[in-house]
Amino acid sequence: MTAVAITEPGGPMVLKPEQREMLQPGEGEILIRVRAAGVNRPDVIQRKGLYPPPPGASDLPGLEAAGEVVMVGEGVRRWHVGDRVTALTPGGGYAEYCLTHETNALPVPHGFTFTEAAAIPETYFTVWHNVFQRGGLKERETLLVHGGSSGIGTTAIQLGTALGARVIATAGSAEKCAACTALGAVRAVNYREEDFVEAVREETDGNGADVILDMIGGDYIDRNYAAAAMDGRIVQIAFLNGAKATADFSQVMRKRLIHTGSTLRPRSVAFKGRIATELEAHIWPLLAARKIAPVMDMIFPLKEAWRAHERMEEGAHIGKIVLDVS
Amino acid sequence: MTAVAITEPGGPMVLKPEQREMLQPGEGEILIRVRAAGVNRPDVIQRKGLYPPPPGASDLPGLEAAGEVVMVGEGVRRWHVGDRVTALTPGGGYAEYCLTHETNALPVPHGFTFTEAAAIPETYFTVWHNVFQRGGLKERETLLVHGGSSGIGTTAIQLGTALGARVIATAGSAEKCAACTALGAVRAVNYREEDFVEAVREETDGNGADVILDMIGGDYIDRNYAAAAMDGRIVQIAFLNGAKATADFSQVMRKRLIHTGSTLRPRSVAFKGRIATELEAHIWPLLAARKIAPVMDMIFPLKEAWRAHERMEEGAHIGKIVLDVS
Repeated sequence: MTAVAITEPGGPMVLKPEQREMLQPGEGEILIRVRAAGVNRPDVIQRKGLYPPPPGASDLPGLEAAGEVVMVGEGVRRWHVGDRVTALTPGGGYAEYCLTHETNALPVPHGFTFTEAAAIPETYFTVWHNVFQRGGLKERETLLVHGGSSGIGTTAIQLGTALGARVIATAGSAEKCAACTALGAVRAVNYREEDFVEAVREETDGNGADVILDMIGGDYIDRNYAAAAMDGRIVQIAFLNGAKATADFSQVMRKRLIHTGSTLRPRSVAFKGRIATELEAHIWPLLAARKIAPVMDMIFPLKEAWRAHERMEEGAHIGKIVLDVS
Repeated sequence: MTAVAITEPGGPMVLKPEQREMLQPGEGEILIRVRAAGVNRPDVIQRKGLYPPPPGASDLPGLEAAGEVVMVGEGVRRWHVGDRVTALTPGGGYAEYCLTHETNALPVPHGFTFTEAAAIPETYFTVWHNVFQRGGLKERETLLVHGGSSGIGTTAIQLGTALGARVIATAGSAEKCAACTALGAVRAVNYREEDFVEAVREETDGNGADVILDMIGGDYIDRNYAAAAMDGRIVQIAFLNGAKATADFSQVMRKRLIHTGSTLRPRSVAFKGRIATELEAHIWPLLAARKIAPVMDMIFPLKEAWRAHERMEEGAHIGKIVLDVS
């Protein structure tokens, strides 16, 4: 099969197509003929050599893929050959075939293309766990989403809004801010022109944000503490501006904040399966009804995965970048 | 009545006895003839002018007191004149009489003197909420207690141990460390001689501490992240070394830590009442059986409250400093 590998740590050009041996599904696993694969920030970090795959995982990049089931391993109960699925993968999505545990796959939502479907798992699993399970966002609360126009950001705005929260987003241009409000954000803050702490205060009658989803880090950390409401929860999922920072922690104590975070990839198959179950119950009906849908930025052929990474690193994208593997 | 007031913000000598008007219990309140009053770090900070009492609270220092009920307000159900109680107060403990809501008082544990009883509320309410409710400490987990020989620290070691956790404590001298292990700590780390991060690793087979109770702050914050286990909870209740600090927050994400904190005083009467209910159910029996008891440092007469503050600020105390108001 054709796959795109990280030939050595480095820039986008180290991503090169190569031939790999065909895969065999193990117990509980399904083999997917990949039709589309999502591109995510962790792929870029892995490509740079800064995020090695967990033990046992494929060395190929790619944390999500959509396609048809072409073989099932022993004990697989839900899926059959020919089923159209979109799945979180333990790695290896940048390929014509990939493996995942059956519980980490979900049906392609009714009416969705494979490229749309491949844009769902990584951001939906991440947002569901971090914003709702870990952050405990409730109806009528205020969610502040940084990087509002990113794959994660657009998903968080949509899910937060769909489930009855007020969402404020930050983004780096007028165009990106317009995308955020089009998705339901009650306010989008252009961080190049406006202080988000002040904007959140204005939008919340001075109360602050109940949940903050942050992938920026750096000086945002202290400012998140300032923007948070009493009993606010700040969930850290990345550190685009660096993880070492100075903060005034008296705010954590005085406002009884919860600062936490997580990474999805190292979690167990069972953990991811439990998120899948909740997503299917609460979110899949909204997708099927087209009340929400992933925001598609650009689609590149698998062999040009390097262009997809270049686009992500330029930072001009709005929504998801996807590889076509047809 | 005689009370000790903060005559102006400043050093211990600003604490001076003066005559105050007698108090009248409002609805749901009890009037206590104070026999002993606990001295706590927030009293010192208040004396310096850095922690003003919340609106409506007494301007007198003193957050806990034990004595007899001498008058009950309208609607008081539990207490009667003559009952021996120890109570969290909204302030005003440094006086011959003080008021509190009936739900914030508990019976003096069987066999306890008033001075012992007055040493209980502030640290027990604080530890119960922060270590067990907020930190979610469970049996067989490891609790790291900084300031192990302080009033809070000695209480946390005792409660953690009594409820089945393994407690590691830090303190600043061999004598203080000996006090910590005598109370049940499996290891006491003299922070002047040893790195607590390393010590916690050793004691936990490299896993780290599940809950960390910290009143130090400063550079301890980053080191707490390093000393914490996966899914560890760090609860901040003060910042003796300062609240502004630099930390590597990648640990918060990678280990899925929860960094949180709280202050007791501004919480509602109802909130404190719920803690009282849990303490009476779970902890009062252990006190009555003398399985645990507050560690008594020194007792000063009410009028010499300034000496009690001097002792606390010198930092040589082990356990609680109490004022005798007989």
